[in-house]
Amino acid sequence: MSGGPKFLALCGGIGGAKLALGLDRVLAAGQFTVVANTGDDFIHLGLHVSPDIDTLLYTLAGLDDPAKGWGRRDETWTFMKAIEALGGESWFLLGDGDLATHVERTRRLAAGETLSMVTEAFRQRLGIASRILPMSDDAVRTRVRTDEGWLDFQHYFVRRRCEPRMEALEFTGAASARMAPAVAEALADPMLAAIIICPSNPYLSVDPILAVPEMRDALAARSVPALAVSPIIAGQAVKGPTAKVMAELGLEPSAATVARHYEGLIDGFMVDTRDADVEVPTGMRAFAAPTLMRSLEDRIDLARAVLAAGAELAGASR
Amino acid sequence: MSGGPKFLALCGGIGGAKLALGLDRVLAAGQFTVVANTGDDFIHLGLHVSPDIDTLLYTLAGLDDPAKGWGRRDETWTFMKAIEALGGESWFLLGDGDLATHVERTRRLAAGETLSMVTEAFRQRLGIASRILPMSDDAVRTRVRTDEGWLDFQHYFVRRRCEPRMEALEFTGAASARMAPAVAEALADPMLAAIIICPSNPYLSVDPILAVPEMRDALAARSVPALAVSPIIAGQAVKGPTAKVMAELGLEPSAATVARHYEGLIDGFMVDTRDADVEVPTGMRAFAAPTLMRSLEDRIDLARAVLAAGAELAGASR
Repeated sequence: MSGGPKFLALCGGIGGAKLALGLDRVLAAGQFTVVANTGDDFIHLGLHVSPDIDTLLYTLAGLDDPAKGWGRRDETWTFMKAIEALGGESWFLLGDGDLATHVERTRRLAAGETLSMVTEAFRQRLGIASRILPMSDDAVRTRVRTDEGWLDFQHYFVRRRCEPRMEALEFTGAASARMAPAVAEALADPMLAAIIICPSNPYLSVDPILAVPEMRDALAARSVPALAVSPIIAGQAVKGPTAKVMAELGLEPSAATVARHYEGLIDGFMVDTRDADVEVPTGMRAFAAPTLMRSLEDRIDLARAVLAAGAELAGASR
Repeated sequence: MSGGPKFLALCGGIGGAKLALGLDRVLAAGQFTVVANTGDDFIHLGLHVSPDIDTLLYTLAGLDDPAKGWGRRDETWTFMKAIEALGGESWFLLGDGDLATHVERTRRLAAGETLSMVTEAFRQRLGIASRILPMSDDAVRTRVRTDEGWLDFQHYFVRRRCEPRMEALEFTGAASARMAPAVAEALADPMLAAIIICPSNPYLSVDPILAVPEMRDALAARSVPALAVSPIIAGQAVKGPTAKVMAELGLEPSAATVARHYEGLIDGFMVDTRDADVEVPTGMRAFAAPTLMRSLEDRIDLARAVLAAGAELAGASR
């Protein structure tokens, strides 16, 4: 374990995990903790699937598929073909290797372990230096009200490919969910130097984390700088439905809109160099760096820029 | 559904399924029902595995691996590698395609279906003409007392490769288990022409079926001929631990010993031509045919010989 400053990030899936990987590579073992959204979790075929935790596990362990952009490398699909033949549900793609994560997680949860314990065991087995924590060990489930009615998140996101028009979001269970114990410890650590919100979808991936009352309270009452990285670059989402969702929620898809969304929770807002003129709310400081992460180098460079911005904010507040 | 005579077989795994395949090929759709041993069933990694039902499903659907002699053809093993990496149990080999059967079965059972219903759904999806039924929808679990203590069946059979010396067998739950409803219907069918005990291990595979009181009672009170095919040829088991188990239980490994084991339950006993001089108990008639099944032709030939023997027994009793 490192005695250096510590950093905690809030993160959704693919986009956010890119920055998490950069931070994992830049920081020493024990310095970095990433808190994953579990609002996307669902029970599928009787198995507990935690898409954002798994994306972080695979990405940080180097098991992710760089070509496909999701899932595991060297994956096979024999299970999917067989379950289709049996008439089982096949709209959610489960690779054969990926399945091991869900089967073993489900078995451990049924045996009484918490999601935190299972995730920690997997992290250790996969040789990941940074900590990965679920935001909560309690069930929080993102639900989407659409023009077709209420949909569970994965039904909206995967089965319906975000096609229904989004009208509202609900995070079932969030109000009574407790922050995971290790998240509380990481936030209370006197060595904590900054809190980072990864460039994940603010509405679908970060809001479920902030919907856990202790999480939002901890951010609002922070004693260290917090900063967010914009998932919007020049009015467009790098990947995924962020811009579509914002438009449907009546919001202008821009970095400035995201900055306002986090008002009161962050001190710094990192935008792409193309958005360097972003307007941010009073009390928030804007930073600009190349935020489009194509290569590992890009991830590491952005991680360094985020850490530098955090240090600047900490220096300014002294 | 055929209006012809009907046949019901009791069956374990690999060895018995060879004859079941022959009968499936020889008889018309609706004529043949095979009752599978479920004493080998177990919960592994939280999944309900039914090895003998699955062997029958895969064999009769043509999905079995003829080279390996067990499991599915075109199988992949990505799941096993991944679960080993996560520190999960890996002593029981689960192929990626095979896993779909266990996951979907477990899901359906958890949703309230019986094992009979699940098996019937799978049979239909896989396009199998013959019916496959579990002996019971209640849990019956084969346990083995060995010189190392009591072992659950798969722990004895797979994990310890039958190496511990067997002292006794127990079929937990059998005494209070009910015969599966469709088995009772098949046995009560006025078109039933014969009952066949496949060349499965009499102690490990057939005895669990006969340990269900209604099954043994139905056989003892049969109104149609019942006949068994010997799994022992010239004092040796074709495959598996039958001879070893018999020796450890203090029994001479011979076809005659198997015939005595089924005394009172069968009218005919089919041995290999090499054992044509077998001594059978009074009231039981011996038949001989080539019982070593290497090719599909062999399976079909033995099925025809068994059906002919059944017809002969039926004719003689008139």
